[in-house]
Amino acid sequence: MKRLIYADNAATTRLDPDALNAMVPFLTDEYGNPSQPYAFSRKPKMAIREARELIASCIGAYPEEIFFTSGGTESDNWAIKGVSFNNSQKKATITSAFEHHAILHACDSIEKLGYPVSYLQPSHEGYISEENLACVTKYNPALVSIMFANNEIGTVQPISQLCSQAHKMGALFHTDAVQVIGHLPVNVHELDVDLLSASAHKFNGPKGVGFLYLKKGVKIHSYADGGAQEHGMRAGTENVAGIVGMAAALSKNCSNMIDNSKRVKLLESILIDALNSSGIEYIRNGGSVRLPGLISLSFPGADGEAILHRLDLKGICVSTGSACNSRLTEVSHVLRAIGLDELYAKGTIRISLSSLNNEDDVVEISKAIEQIFC
Amino acid sequence: MKRLIYADNAATTRLDPDALNAMVPFLTDEYGNPSQPYAFSRKPKMAIREARELIASCIGAYPEEIFFTSGGTESDNWAIKGVSFNNSQKKATITSAFEHHAILHACDSIEKLGYPVSYLQPSHEGYISEENLACVTKYNPALVSIMFANNEIGTVQPISQLCSQAHKMGALFHTDAVQVIGHLPVNVHELDVDLLSASAHKFNGPKGVGFLYLKKGVKIHSYADGGAQEHGMRAGTENVAGIVGMAAALSKNCSNMIDNSKRVKLLESILIDALNSSGIEYIRNGGSVRLPGLISLSFPGADGEAILHRLDLKGICVSTGSACNSRLTEVSHVLRAIGLDELYAKGTIRISLSSLNNEDDVVEISKAIEQIFC
Repeated sequence: MKRLIYADNAATTRLDPDALNAMVPFLTDEYGNPSQPYAFSRKPKMAIREARELIASCIGAYPEEIFFTSGGTESDNWAIKGVSFNNSQKKATITSAFEHHAILHACDSIEKLGYPVSYLQPSHEGYISEENLACVTKYNPALVSIMFANNEIGTVQPISQLCSQAHKMGALFHTDAVQVIGHLPVNVHELDVDLLSASAHKFNGPKGVGFLYLKKGVKIHSYADGGAQEHGMRAGTENVAGIVGMAAALSKNCSNMIDNSKRVKLLESILIDALNSSGIEYIRNGGSVRLPGLISLSFPGADGEAILHRLDLKGICVSTGSACNSRLTEVSHVLRAIGLDELYAKGTIRISLSSLNNEDDVVEISKAIEQIFC
Repeated sequence: MKRLIYADNAATTRLDPDALNAMVPFLTDEYGNPSQPYAFSRKPKMAIREARELIASCIGAYPEEIFFTSGGTESDNWAIKGVSFNNSQKKATITSAFEHHAILHACDSIEKLGYPVSYLQPSHEGYISEENLACVTKYNPALVSIMFANNEIGTVQPISQLCSQAHKMGALFHTDAVQVIGHLPVNVHELDVDLLSASAHKFNGPKGVGFLYLKKGVKIHSYADGGAQEHGMRAGTENVAGIVGMAAALSKNCSNMIDNSKRVKLLESILIDALNSSGIEYIRNGGSVRLPGLISLSFPGADGEAILHRLDLKGICVSTGSACNSRLTEVSHVLRAIGLDELYAKGTIRISLSSLNNEDDVVEISKAIEQIFC
């Protein structure tokens, strides 16, 4: 059987075996409903409490600021709609043109309901600056939502400055940190963000679970109405196993973050060096402040989808754009937003490495790319 | 260690071991994102397709009518809000006063946004009749939402008639079937319902996953905006393991439904006979068309919570009301809606048996109740 070289960790990651082990009791004997008062529900209830504390400690939050959701998309939708629906004056939302579709399409939804939305254009390198944001003060926004790092090109935004500018404008600040949590150090209280979205399966947790950080005292509309779970803000019987697995995965990733990051950066440089010595014509998208291991490459005149399929035949998994929209074959909105020439944009692939990759993987990836182009 | 007698299956159920086995590959090696086009994502993608087909076949639907959600609460919220937000004339919603809070609180939410809601009162036995519903034709509703079976008292509604009456009124018909799916035969096409909610953990599937049945051609607003998953109606990377586990559990429960139901009804009658011979004063709530194994008992002058705790000390898990609101100690809205005298209502417990219970369990439950009252 062909060896799998998984280099699409920005799309999803492998569930950590320790996280799975932590989940097993809640998929077997400890099936009690955490909302019930009897002794049998104590362990799931405690497990949720501990998971909340663990996750809070990983991002510098208070436990009561962590709200469990079904994933990053729900967290993003909740942030955008929850702030809007709590703002009877229908004040504006400011976001960027290269957010994940979970933000952009949630913004489409609120626009249809009469809430204005304004879109900032990123620079060619993929940054939104404080100055960009300062230009739209006139909109008097209720919310500014800028992603922490772009999922296609990896550029990391100056979140602290953007957040402080949003606050000067009297707006709340949300960041879609789905690509960042578990990969870069984040302290929500130091950054002073009001809302932050995360998704477990992007940091070796299970699929179908995530969280929204909501700063104490910030009022937003509830997302799902029903039972009293999540302080009455997000009803529904808790996904106990998922929550426990998410906390275990995040805690492990945060403990190993420095080593993982070093390893991934080393693999990244081996890959880039190999590509450079091959003489293949390409550009790397995104500025220099980037997520470790996220490599967006554009080969002029090539077809990204064809490259993906050629690599797939060799057992190598990479992406053209965001996994969520991989059925669309047009040039991604991200590459359009950074103004990438179509000649390059159409020939773009995203390689996203993790600490589970090794030197052989990146050597094989670079060789496979060479075989396509040389 | 004390033997656990779990008799709170209406709150949640034990994950079926075969369902867990079906999930394991997607919690380990098969971690690919189902939206990606490469070979490694084929198995998760196929697994989701097969799960959709399996679930559809269990309820007489087409696969494309099944939309995966994070659970019953999300499905209910989606039904109520999805129909409302798609109805620019702000036509009314008709529901009943004894729905699950996922429906009632979602209705509160849309009322605040200017959509009128009208609440039908159930009979003392816990039924909503066609005649009840016919009385509110004047409201010209967009949606009628009546639960299939009540989660606290177990009465099963005449869904086919209610649905047909709703259609005569020009309204869509939704049913919260969270307590029913996997326990009673349901054929959505025969019933002709337009929307139906279900939750995996109520039929021995995992927590954190459910589905909404949406009849072909019925238009509602999307729930979560973002990627193209679930035909663009409910974005977010799929909870592959959860979806697969849900399908396996439902399929097994449906195959064994007749035997399970017989077994549970036998256990139920043993329990009721034992209580009757004990001479304890009690009434059983709800009419005669009931969910198998759901037994709501009211002991006049007693305190339901105290009974629950006394049983808990003997390792017996029962409920006072809905698990989702078990932190509230007041009389439940369901018992109020059926007009139960407070003297009885306060002394109410819900025992909910499953096919995993045995004769010893029910004998011990009845003995434990006798010890409290005799």
